[in-house]
Amino acid sequence: MRARDLTVDFPTVTLDTPMIEAARLLADQDLPGLIVIDERGRPRTVLPGTQVLRLAVPRYCQDDPALARVVDEAHADAFLRALAGRTVRECLPEEPRELPVTDPDATVLEIAALMARTRSPLVAVVGGGRLLGAVTLQTLLDRALAS
Amino acid sequence: MRARDLTVDFPTVTLDTPMIEAARLLADQDLPGLIVIDERGRPRTVLPGTQVLRLAVPRYCQDDPALARVVDEAHADAFLRALAGRTVRECLPEEPRELPVTDPDATVLEIAALMARTRSPLVAVVGGGRLLGAVTLQTLLDRALAS
Repeated sequence: MRARDLTVDFPTVTLDTPMIEAARLLADQDLPGLIVIDERGRPRTVLPGTQVLRLAVPRYCQDDPALARVVDEAHADAFLRALAGRTVRECLPEEPRELPVTDPDATVLEIAALMARTRSPLVAVVGGGRLLGAVTLQTLLDRALAS
Repeated sequence: MRARDLTVDFPTVTLDTPMIEAARLLADQDLPGLIVIDERGRPRTVLPGTQVLRLAVPRYCQDDPALARVVDEAHADAFLRALAGRTVRECLPEEPRELPVTDPDATVLEIAALMARTRSPLVAVVGGGRLLGAVTLQTLLDRALAS
């Protein structure tokens, strides 16, 4: 069983997609994360769902739980408005990190190790220079438990 | 909007649950993670789905992608067998870390910050000394986008 056998079609967003639209896609389609593609259709980054939240939560609230607590309920409810008017490009983290991207030959164990290491329930599969789709944690577990 | 308004019932496992059964629960019910409760019904830990994988993947494969690649396909397919015969207790990570657990008064922003910080798409809600349920990333996003 290789990545190619587990790959499913997966919606993508571009660097120019409005960030709030990307968040809505994640919510509406119940996705484990987002694949951001570049102009050539290749994954520029893969954002686990929790890291999409990170883009909207002010830095001081992420670092210090006590500071998140002092924001009143009305402002807290509206925290996603921080994304309004911003594109995916403007929200991406700067730091380089290992991306959950693999090739069609990757084994189940390689994909599982990649998911564990990058804490991403979603791995993009790239072959022949283009995005073929994604392997999700759910698909991986379903198939690994059946084998 | 507070944690209590977003809390849903969520299945739990105990320290004595066989690990393979816990993995099956995650896969079958399409859960974002697992809540492990102690003898008193309180969360002992919360494991995001990707961290359940971590329990099954040999350490050397997690640290070095090249080593994961040399394991042949048949052995890779069967990597979850590493969990066979082990309970949740025997698989839990040793290192202390911040748990994605909050109280019913937490605001949407606090929950979002906690999910981002702990990289967990699942937060356990504890009130009056007992587990009330969980807030999932999906519920949080759905509600925050609607407000």
